[in-house]
Amino acid sequence: MRISELKDFVDQQVEITGWVIGKRSSGKIHFILIRDSSAFCQVVVAEKEVHPEVFEQCKHLNIETVIKIKALAVEEPRAKLGYELHLKDMEVLSTPVDEYPIPRKPSGPDFLLNYRHLWIRSPRQSAIMRIRSKVISAIRNYLDQQGFYCVDTPIFTASSCEGTTTLFKVDYFNQDVFLAQTGQLYNEATALCLDKVYCFGPSFRAEKSKTRRHLTEFWQVEPEFLFARLEDIINLAEGMIVRIVEEILTHHQIDLKILDRDISKLEQVKAPFPRMTYDQALQLLQEKNISAEWGKDFGAPEETKISESFNSPVCIHRYPSAIKAFYMKQAPEDNRLALGVDILAPEGYGEIVGGGVREEDIAILEQRIDQHQLNRDDYQWYLDLRRYGSVPHGGFGLGIERTVAWICGIHHIRETIAFPRTIDRIKP
Amino acid sequence: MRISELKDFVDQQVEITGWVIGKRSSGKIHFILIRDSSAFCQVVVAEKEVHPEVFEQCKHLNIETVIKIKALAVEEPRAKLGYELHLKDMEVLSTPVDEYPIPRKPSGPDFLLNYRHLWIRSPRQSAIMRIRSKVISAIRNYLDQQGFYCVDTPIFTASSCEGTTTLFKVDYFNQDVFLAQTGQLYNEATALCLDKVYCFGPSFRAEKSKTRRHLTEFWQVEPEFLFARLEDIINLAEGMIVRIVEEILTHHQIDLKILDRDISKLEQVKAPFPRMTYDQALQLLQEKNISAEWGKDFGAPEETKISESFNSPVCIHRYPSAIKAFYMKQAPEDNRLALGVDILAPEGYGEIVGGGVREEDIAILEQRIDQHQLNRDDYQWYLDLRRYGSVPHGGFGLGIERTVAWICGIHHIRETIAFPRTIDRIKP
Repeated sequence: MRISELKDFVDQQVEITGWVIGKRSSGKIHFILIRDSSAFCQVVVAEKEVHPEVFEQCKHLNIETVIKIKALAVEEPRAKLGYELHLKDMEVLSTPVDEYPIPRKPSGPDFLLNYRHLWIRSPRQSAIMRIRSKVISAIRNYLDQQGFYCVDTPIFTASSCEGTTTLFKVDYFNQDVFLAQTGQLYNEATALCLDKVYCFGPSFRAEKSKTRRHLTEFWQVEPEFLFARLEDIINLAEGMIVRIVEEILTHHQIDLKILDRDISKLEQVKAPFPRMTYDQALQLLQEKNISAEWGKDFGAPEETKISESFNSPVCIHRYPSAIKAFYMKQAPEDNRLALGVDILAPEGYGEIVGGGVREEDIAILEQRIDQHQLNRDDYQWYLDLRRYGSVPHGGFGLGIERTVAWICGIHHIRETIAFPRTIDRIKP
Repeated sequence: MRISELKDFVDQQVEITGWVIGKRSSGKIHFILIRDSSAFCQVVVAEKEVHPEVFEQCKHLNIETVIKIKALAVEEPRAKLGYELHLKDMEVLSTPVDEYPIPRKPSGPDFLLNYRHLWIRSPRQSAIMRIRSKVISAIRNYLDQQGFYCVDTPIFTASSCEGTTTLFKVDYFNQDVFLAQTGQLYNEATALCLDKVYCFGPSFRAEKSKTRRHLTEFWQVEPEFLFARLEDIINLAEGMIVRIVEEILTHHQIDLKILDRDISKLEQVKAPFPRMTYDQALQLLQEKNISAEWGKDFGAPEETKISESFNSPVCIHRYPSAIKAFYMKQAPEDNRLALGVDILAPEGYGEIVGGGVREEDIAILEQRIDQHQLNRDDYQWYLDLRRYGSVPHGGFGLGIERTVAWICGIHHIRETIAFPRTIDRIKP
């Protein structure tokens, strides 16, 4: 029996195991706040309702004492989640050996991150972790149900996708190898076996900038499939995002309430998402008096401005080819443009999806490798995918942390993962 | 329409897109072997059945030519998968630019691994990848359905679980960090928030030995849950393994056939698995005239001998505490024994699961850290989990590659992952 199930047990006696997260007393009555794995709830202890020994015990409860209680579940409109518990009996299962190090008054992020192993126990952080878990299973189920195979790609890689400046180097038996930033090139190899594939794992970026949108260790899902046109890729991503939002709205109302998330914003997320070309996005920016030069990528301010104009995520496609990866196919109608798409989350959360059609012709791909001043030798195996059995294909990557940040409505991406890693943080 | 669906289209005309993987001719008839994402099949091209131009085209098909065919699906008991296709019409979608580098005659593993990006296209390797994908989704669905949350643990870690000798070192902005070998310690932190959790990601071991059971990069799922007794842990692992086998037997008969897997072996995997103590396992070995000394861990030969005695995986519990990790709880009835369990796969595939109950008492845990000559300071955050809100808990890790090797009946673990990493291989 979990706290989240209380609504089905109103006016019934329930048994719950909980961890004390707060307490206040007013003589004849104690208010104990407890958490369990599902939510949190106030336990009202009236002196006349419990055994004197239990009442006395309640006086001395500390933060993170574990208690097993028998209590009456009661509707309480003033409670954040709408319910409270009236204590009947209590047993102490575990007593902390020390005073809890995280004080009730708000602490700074550095202090909290030092205690991340305990901070995650707070209702907000736990709610984010529960939502993250559902985001992951929603994505996997969505892909699995459409016949995609999960084929994970290697983390240790010899060559890099696009230069090594943001790659972490590993001492691999006295040889240098790099931690992969994307599984995409490998996905193309496995797609040419199994058609619909995805990898879903951690990626690593030696990101020196300390922004609220960057971690050195982040997770992404990257589907790839054969005979993919740009619109197929956009449709797949759109469907995935819609599914994520639906699953969260259906199963995580309590968590969204804990996070004070404005769910009306999420309820507006419906397919089809607005789609526009890069050129149209530039025009939109100009109408908003933001001058953006043709040929440059959008930064956070431009992305925010564009996404503010819509209630759903926005798909921007056909960026200038020059600012996109070498493997991205150029538009047949204008080879200055790439058949690529970025999807920007609403409310200024920025890019959550990047993808596109891959160049399947070996001659063009070799040219592009040269133009990008990459070493052809490093890509011979990748070029083999065009030498033998090459067909059109494409896919995208969706960043888990950015998606979770948007769904949860939280400012800094570091709260979207259990143990965030940034340039100055690798502990605990 | 995929080759795996042919059984539902017998004597009907079908349209299939396939990659040529072989060809032989006898004057008036060509036999073309094609693969698609689901399986492979022979296409019979009779001169009198197709347009002369098509027949001529067929003569010149090379390995990895991509063709779209119209053909009659025909039952053919001599075919490995029971069906063949009689060609009616064909269109060539893509022509290889070079001769396929993997010859038809068997090649050595080094040669094949150099062409891993193409080798995975072979029916056997594709079948293994499809099975692996289902093993992963079976595990995830099993845990999700029981209310487990997926909470992934960090890869970058400052301290190690048990020494750093088998850890990979990363240059992290001029600081040394290590790649995690397990998420277990972190799982304990998240379990104390969400009760039932699991992480499922890549793990890294700087394994110098070149055995058929070791990779430097491997995947494991590690569930952890509160109030877990040893038997709960064994039950959860047993249920997971049974589910995996059921899902594979239900959905991957074609792949098992491609792999020539003796499915009768898999059909015998039923709960409850035999369970025995370490002491009983020693006795079993003695009965088989293998002398094993009390207090030592079992090696591959002992594991093989034990597992050969059973049709199901075998659970061996209560190993000597001294050979198990510092955090493993000692048996209350005999503190020389650990409340841990290993599960050995049948047919000599060795350990696929290792787990147990964790010590939840801080005083004992501190003692154990000292006994193992580990640095208490490195574990302060971990000890906090016992200082505050500590309750009994435990879990296990299941190795994906070893499990897939067993299910598929393949000798070397390197074929169970798309791009295997070993001491002397990080490419492609």
